[in-house]
Amino acid sequence: MARIVMKFGGTSMAGTERIARAARIIKRQQEAGHEVAVVVSAMAGETDRLVNFCREASPLYDPAEYDVVVSSGEQVTSGLLALTLQSLGCKARSWLGWQLPFNTDHAHSKARIGQIETAALLESMAAGEIAVIPGFQGLSPQGRVATLGRGGSDTSAVAVAAAVKADRCDIYTDVDGVYTSDPRIVTRARKLDKVTYEEMLELASVGSKVLQTRSVSLAMKEGVRIQVLSSFVEDGAVPADDLPGTLIVSDEELEGSDMERQLITGIAADKNEAKVTLTRLADKPGAVALVFGPLADANINVDMIIQNVAKDKGETDVTFTVPQSDLARAMALLEERKDETGFYRMISDDHVAKISVVGVGMRSHAGIAATMFTALAERGINILAISTSEIKVSVLINADETELAVRLLHTAYGLDAQDEAA
Amino acid sequence: MARIVMKFGGTSMAGTERIARAARIIKRQQEAGHEVAVVVSAMAGETDRLVNFCREASPLYDPAEYDVVVSSGEQVTSGLLALTLQSLGCKARSWLGWQLPFNTDHAHSKARIGQIETAALLESMAAGEIAVIPGFQGLSPQGRVATLGRGGSDTSAVAVAAAVKADRCDIYTDVDGVYTSDPRIVTRARKLDKVTYEEMLELASVGSKVLQTRSVSLAMKEGVRIQVLSSFVEDGAVPADDLPGTLIVSDEELEGSDMERQLITGIAADKNEAKVTLTRLADKPGAVALVFGPLADANINVDMIIQNVAKDKGETDVTFTVPQSDLARAMALLEERKDETGFYRMISDDHVAKISVVGVGMRSHAGIAATMFTALAERGINILAISTSEIKVSVLINADETELAVRLLHTAYGLDAQDEAA
Repeated sequence: MARIVMKFGGTSMAGTERIARAARIIKRQQEAGHEVAVVVSAMAGETDRLVNFCREASPLYDPAEYDVVVSSGEQVTSGLLALTLQSLGCKARSWLGWQLPFNTDHAHSKARIGQIETAALLESMAAGEIAVIPGFQGLSPQGRVATLGRGGSDTSAVAVAAAVKADRCDIYTDVDGVYTSDPRIVTRARKLDKVTYEEMLELASVGSKVLQTRSVSLAMKEGVRIQVLSSFVEDGAVPADDLPGTLIVSDEELEGSDMERQLITGIAADKNEAKVTLTRLADKPGAVALVFGPLADANINVDMIIQNVAKDKGETDVTFTVPQSDLARAMALLEERKDETGFYRMISDDHVAKISVVGVGMRSHAGIAATMFTALAERGINILAISTSEIKVSVLINADETELAVRLLHTAYGLDAQDEAA
Repeated sequence: MARIVMKFGGTSMAGTERIARAARIIKRQQEAGHEVAVVVSAMAGETDRLVNFCREASPLYDPAEYDVVVSSGEQVTSGLLALTLQSLGCKARSWLGWQLPFNTDHAHSKARIGQIETAALLESMAAGEIAVIPGFQGLSPQGRVATLGRGGSDTSAVAVAAAVKADRCDIYTDVDGVYTSDPRIVTRARKLDKVTYEEMLELASVGSKVLQTRSVSLAMKEGVRIQVLSSFVEDGAVPADDLPGTLIVSDEELEGSDMERQLITGIAADKNEAKVTLTRLADKPGAVALVFGPLADANINVDMIIQNVAKDKGETDVTFTVPQSDLARAMALLEERKDETGFYRMISDDHVAKISVVGVGMRSHAGIAATMFTALAERGINILAISTSEIKVSVLINADETELAVRLLHTAYGLDAQDEAA
């Protein structure tokens, strides 16, 4: 017997038919002898609808009242899933954020998770009752509804799994796992059986949006084993105790289980970045702070930063990337401070893509970056910028070459699936 | 300065534009110096949508989970109204059922109201904050969401008004008050300035669906003064302290204020009844119980009951009315028990209307019923059944003659509005 937290996203909750499919999947886990808690998102599109109501009501909305409105979507699906499970003959009940309670801080609309009370929950689960918990919502220290920010239901599920010491947190989505690359680009992309938390974080941060980044960080911190899998499989196609998706685990678990592991786990592409170059910036202490301080204050997330070695006259060029949606704001901020910062020209390019090669294996192996640069150079793909981390090498290229670059690298690192006949 | 509870129904909450109109009305009351709490319904159509989800999820739904789902509609409008009031520069916050708490019993989906905690609420109102309270929802003794039954928001508003000892409970609807008769039938119907609780109860029970009956009963018990008025008046057309609608008050207040009051308050028609006659029932003790016991057990609401004096052979005919929606079920139940009950034939007619003349004045005046019967007889309208209460005389007639009968009686009792020129 295991204790399992299952999480279903908005597409899996979009209407009573899909809720019924989720309920059948949940019932099979209970029938396999497990204690089950389920965390649910709102119906697909519902949170957008509610957010729009709030915007219409008040452009500068009070986040505490915003939370009252937007948390209702998960309340609805949690009640409906409990009803549906009951109609299948299961014992089930919903536990709203304030009922557990699922405590948070008071940062409405982007609350941090605190202590989750589990005594009543565990008692109910031990009695064979399936616990249905609305994701995204909690209770603030002031006794009000607080939400965790968009996509917060993944994080809710991991937090519940940590609190009840679950054996696994199964996150059901509309894809059946994590792939070596986007299957829409790379037809020979393979589903991964296991990835590490750190790899998943790097993949998430470069555009593989299977899980909310925050949920992976929390899982890593709390040691929660996550499985990503699809809620759109035929009932009964997979034995209840099988692990058909991708497991996200610690380095140790991965190494212990998978000696033959490849160096590189996956190739990701992100077309949502824009590049900004400031030329002839003074090459002296504090100059760069004058650039990035105001961006940080404005909550603009700067990702890659490349500073070339100083040329003559004590001047240097700085290139960095920001989300495309923040480009106009970032440029306006810097233009305002042009005199203070002292750059000569500002050049922007939003037609770029960041291609990343990710893998825990690369820590101990030289040559990973060289393989990348060689493969791209052979096909004449120009590298605009480079950044590296312990388990990732990223390059910025022209957006037109995104698909070509991803396919090239997928082959170069030996990730392509073999033909069945081979 | 007064303390006022305002209630807005589903049509007044249907979308952010209408919510903004309600917010402007509320703001004017606060600007007039009053302490204000507001009770809101869900957006028009929303509760139906949620109820349908529940039916789809599970035909025999658990009322506790049903309550979790359907209470979300009022949660949304309470948050949105608070946001909208804030955008107009008012201080405002929502108070969900579990936050006050608004205590109820554990009869989910039709809960009875218990104690409403008001300390925090009154403190907030005294500090100039407009309290926005979702109607229809409360907190059960088990710490779960409980709802009051459809249309429960009127009752929530009256309960809050009683708890905070409000000077008045203003119920905003899509009509501008209570009329002497349905203005769609009687063009000369007049809006009433005041009616008593008992008159309102009788008018509600015979088809004048301005207020939920239960809310009027509660107001009568708790002595809450209600004003029914329209939320669709032009902002500023009426001074904030005026009473443009219909006040619903006690007998004493009415008598004190209105010496010239007419005997009859209004004429109501109800086409939702059906008539059933059982012929040649044994005229002996217990025979009638055999008929109405099973109907009561099946929660079928029997309204008028007329038993004729026994004819020869110790037999009698019994006629009664039930809601049309329950007619088939009632007849099936009685047919099953035909042997036991011993009637000869069962005759039904769902093409009937109940016409009622209502007025507290009739208590002390004979001749009210005679006027009615004479007026109808003069135009050849056949009376199928008669029932009376202290402040009401009702007759059952053929449904085709409904409008004619209502207009005749409206004139016969001197209720017609006079021409401006007269």
